[in-house]
Amino acid sequence: MTDPYPTSETLDAFHRGRFHLIQPKGKGHRAGLDAMLLASLVPDSASGTLADFGAGAGAAGFAVASRIKTLRVMLVERAPSMVQLARRSVALSENRHLADRMEVIEADVTSTGAHRIAMGLSDSAFDHVVMNPPFNDQRDRTTPDTLKAEAHAMDGPVFADWIRTAGAVARPGGQLSLIARPQSLMDILTACENRFGAIQLTPVHPRPGEDAVRLLLSAIKGSRTRLSLRPPLFVHEHGGREFSPNVDALCNGLASIER
Amino acid sequence: MTDPYPTSETLDAFHRGRFHLIQPKGKGHRAGLDAMLLASLVPDSASGTLADFGAGAGAAGFAVASRIKTLRVMLVERAPSMVQLARRSVALSENRHLADRMEVIEADVTSTGAHRIAMGLSDSAFDHVVMNPPFNDQRDRTTPDTLKAEAHAMDGPVFADWIRTAGAVARPGGQLSLIARPQSLMDILTACENRFGAIQLTPVHPRPGEDAVRLLLSAIKGSRTRLSLRPPLFVHEHGGREFSPNVDALCNGLASIER
Repeated sequence: MTDPYPTSETLDAFHRGRFHLIQPKGKGHRAGLDAMLLASLVPDSASGTLADFGAGAGAAGFAVASRIKTLRVMLVERAPSMVQLARRSVALSENRHLADRMEVIEADVTSTGAHRIAMGLSDSAFDHVVMNPPFNDQRDRTTPDTLKAEAHAMDGPVFADWIRTAGAVARPGGQLSLIARPQSLMDILTACENRFGAIQLTPVHPRPGEDAVRLLLSAIKGSRTRLSLRPPLFVHEHGGREFSPNVDALCNGLASIER
Repeated sequence: MTDPYPTSETLDAFHRGRFHLIQPKGKGHRAGLDAMLLASLVPDSASGTLADFGAGAGAAGFAVASRIKTLRVMLVERAPSMVQLARRSVALSENRHLADRMEVIEADVTSTGAHRIAMGLSDSAFDHVVMNPPFNDQRDRTTPDTLKAEAHAMDGPVFADWIRTAGAVARPGGQLSLIARPQSLMDILTACENRFGAIQLTPVHPRPGEDAVRLLLSAIKGSRTRLSLRPPLFVHEHGGREFSPNVDALCNGLASIER
């Protein structure tokens, strides 16, 4: 009997076994806390259709589909190899309870106009858009000011492009949810202006007393309600290495960050 | 013997009696938590000269002068009645240990160019600027979207004008510190752009689990370092009506929010 998951891939359980993902092993971005926290921004009461921009192996979209039975989920991914992986995950027998609500399309979320629509991203078609835009980890480990400035120059367009497309494909009143690094806040707020309002920010701190390492944001298309700062999340409690109870619940699809 | 503080005024102790302020009674803005938290953004190691924009009765500037002996403090206030009150507070025997490091000038921080300089606000003259820009409490109690939009339209120029002046009068590398409502975040970040960097945000929540009601911000003139999200403050602990220990220490000049 041959191993169906050779050394280049792993099969990983999420939500305490309620869904599984095939992921590349040892290279590229592997799904974890970020994707689960992003998914937790979609409220339990959500229904209709959700687009997961830059879905990768599909972790965030799967997590939403697993928790919210009233949502159809479209994974949107540019890289053909990740699209294939995501399609194989949808086809897994372990995920058969989710498969009829999930779809994977190969599309670049930075495309515009007729090209975007032709790839499957229609205007005002989605009740929810979630995104975890890529950032270069390498830049986080280097601190000279020139590199910081370069990071600023490079991240700004990513958010501008991705949020512009989210603004086009979300229906009026639809919700954008994203996870990013705190230093991208200005780029994100600028991109949301005149598209998404009622912005709610949730800082994510490793522990009490430490700076936030991630920022969760949700917003409503066309709303004029002003920004609010929600209670922070602490991934760990003082000293502990396990997840704090509320982060553990969010990561396992047992709770959500209600607006 | 006549009461030197008739019913229209009160004499109030701050920092557990280490300084006193004469304040108008029952009308206008009375100093409290906001001014003390604002003052706590100035680091213990500060030296040189600080400008307190829109100083009112002087609470924030007095609090900084009381904690940091190496700073000279200029209270900048537009309203002649408040300027008189602040000057009388400087002259109080209770404040004689601070008086030779404090000055009060009557000036509108929204003035520009030669007029601003003539009023005493010189270019690159200050190591620190602190501000608690006014906002209309009335608007906080009304929630229709039209009023929210109006608030947005009205607050934006306040931050633009005040932070523009702060950028002019701060020396390169000088620190801006401010306290505001979370909904003003975008206006503030926009005004800081190309003037102040290394922005550090500290949300202030009434209690754990509640939305932030204030935002503390410090930033450095000319820095290209990107934004960070500092650990939040909780004014009260779960259930308690007293200040939490760290907020109590900040309010009494016994601690500061170090950058």
